[in-house]
Amino acid sequence: MAFERMIKNAFEESRNNCRFGDTLEEIREIQDYIKNAKRICIPNKNGIKVEVLNKVLSEYDLPSAEILHINTNTADTSRIPALAKAYMALDQSDADLIIARGRLGIPGSGSLLIFIDNKGRILTAGTSPSHVIHKKSIEQAVYEEACEALEKIGFEKVEK
Amino acid sequence: MAFERMIKNAFEESRNNCRFGDTLEEIREIQDYIKNAKRICIPNKNGIKVEVLNKVLSEYDLPSAEILHINTNTADTSRIPALAKAYMALDQSDADLIIARGRLGIPGSGSLLIFIDNKGRILTAGTSPSHVIHKKSIEQAVYEEACEALEKIGFEKVEK
Amino acid sequence: MAFERMIKNAFEESRNNCRFGDTLEEIREIQDYIKNAKRICIPNKNGIKVEVLNKVLSEYDLPSAEILHINTNTADTSRIPALAKAYMALDQSDADLIIARGRLGIPGSGSLLIFIDNKGRILTAGTSPSHVIHKKSIEQAVYEEACEALEKIGFEKVEK
Amino acid sequence: MAFERMIKNAFEESRNNCRFGDTLEEIREIQDYIKNAKRICIPNKNGIKVEVLNKVLSEYDLPSAEILHINTNTADTSRIPALAKAYMALDQSDADLIIARGRLGIPGSGSLLIFIDNKGRILTAGTSPSHVIHKKSIEQAVYEEACEALEKIGFEKVEK
Repeated sequence: MAFERMIKNAFEESRNNCRFGDTLEEIREIQDYIKNAKRICIPNKNGIKVEVLNKVLSEYDLPSAEILHINTNTADTSRIPALAKAYMALDQSDADLIIARGRLGIPGSGSLLIFIDNKGRILTAGTSPSHVIHKKSIEQAVYEEACEALEKIGFEKVEK
Repeated sequence: MAFERMIKNAFEESRNNCRFGDTLEEIREIQDYIKNAKRICIPNKNGIKVEVLNKVLSEYDLPSAEILHINTNTADTSRIPALAKAYMALDQSDADLIIARGRLGIPGSGSLLIFIDNKGRILTAGTSPSHVIHKKSIEQAVYEEACEALEKIGFEKVEK
Repeated sequence: MAFERMIKNAFEESRNNCRFGDTLEEIREIQDYIKNAKRICIPNKNGIKVEVLNKVLSEYDLPSAEILHINTNTADTSRIPALAKAYMALDQSDADLIIARGRLGIPGSGSLLIFIDNKGRILTAGTSPSHVIHKKSIEQAVYEEACEALEKIGFEKVEK
Repeated sequence: MAFERMIKNAFEESRNNCRFGDTLEEIREIQDYIKNAKRICIPNKNGIKVEVLNKVLSEYDLPSAEILHINTNTADTSRIPALAKAYMALDQSDADLIIARGRLGIPGSGSLLIFIDNKGRILTAGTSPSHVIHKKSIEQAVYEEACEALEKIGFEKVEK
């Protein structure tokens, strides 16, 4: 029962017109969920993104992830391919945290790296423009998206 | 028939394992769609975000948007509140471009500003952390998200 | 602007706790939309379902549909495969009415035949159990689902 | 790890063009999940639907459900209101089975009663036309939808 109470409270606040933005407690709950994840999966055909993501997770002192071998090509026909990939991993594994990367929307819309919990709820995300716009290597793009996603919810790099 | 052919092509490429990322042509189609939008709507209760967004649209020499008065509080119970707001506007208006802003995912996950077309397809997006993380004014956050969304698909500010 | 006003009204009723179920006017608007559809598409690999569906459409004196050749296998990885197929057709064609059939949910959950409009909104649907439960031919199952979907919104077979 | 392996297998079959419909094993897995549910929740404002649903569950010798008090009005702005209600219950409780009833699609499209598991996956469903079409009492409509949903996945009423 990770987020249920917090979601219920936020929902009541919205309904009563007394919601004034996210709170530090909510952000800390997301942080705790990620810190305590028992099985982090990354759906992917090959291991390149996984190496980069584990480098990032380590820099923020977070548990490491494993690859979930799925041919996620089929996700490209979905409205939000990155989310479709995440749901494929959710439906085919017992991971409690999934990190997936794919297109944000239609072709040309760039990429989205997304963290979802064991019920498919979005915890955080990072985005990049298409490669033809940013010209970065895929490793660099994934690295920056993951850092963006983690810093967005208050994580900081840890000195080692 | 704005994006149908391009989506069909990209889909075939994915299925045949010969998709190598977004192309400049795809990005230009998104740009053309936005430049030629006849009615741009922003679902909102009040006008603050609309003023900021019109300032941004003007800086990139794009057509201006109008407010669509909807109480979008109910969107907060959705999995992706920003997208739920966009769909509320899509379903209740004849806009061909909708710009909506709301929470990205669960409480604490920050905000998402999203552009969708007349069929509900995502064209681009910008994101911010929660206010308690970034400490910016809402005007500044909306401004930066909108610039991020437009530059992500290759638009540049126009000297006036 | 087929359904926008009606959706706006229903939404206001719900929000004000004075929505008392669907009205005859709403059902008639759905009927009119289907009667006046200019291009009805059925996403499919082969033509069997299309023949059956056109037989049904004719029995209810409705315009006939055409096949949209798409390999919709990839939809099976979605949460609602029937809806994913419908959206693939929506995104790759200029149809204003799409009839798609696929699995309802997870494997074993049976099938769903769904009608969506040109913005992806669900107009009606029919369902069947899995073949191993009902033992009917696929033609018979599709026939009955389509009749169910049409009668659900008040259409009746026309004597010829 | 209830359905993960079965979903993975079905996915591989689809991808390899050797999926020939749902299997009895898949249907039995859905049955087992429902029989063994530890906490069944029904999101609702009042108790009427819950009484009817518990009557049905008892007739099929299944564990009984409890009400989850949520104002689900806001779900009516979603594309599939019944599913949106189910997700509200999923996100605000620790139920491992949720039964929700709401509109199928746009106003006029009738109602959908849906069973989802602890990850939000659809197990089965029953539907009704709008009240103005079928003229049944709400109790009768809910009763029939629930029986339809259970018989669709092979459950039979138990003599007592």
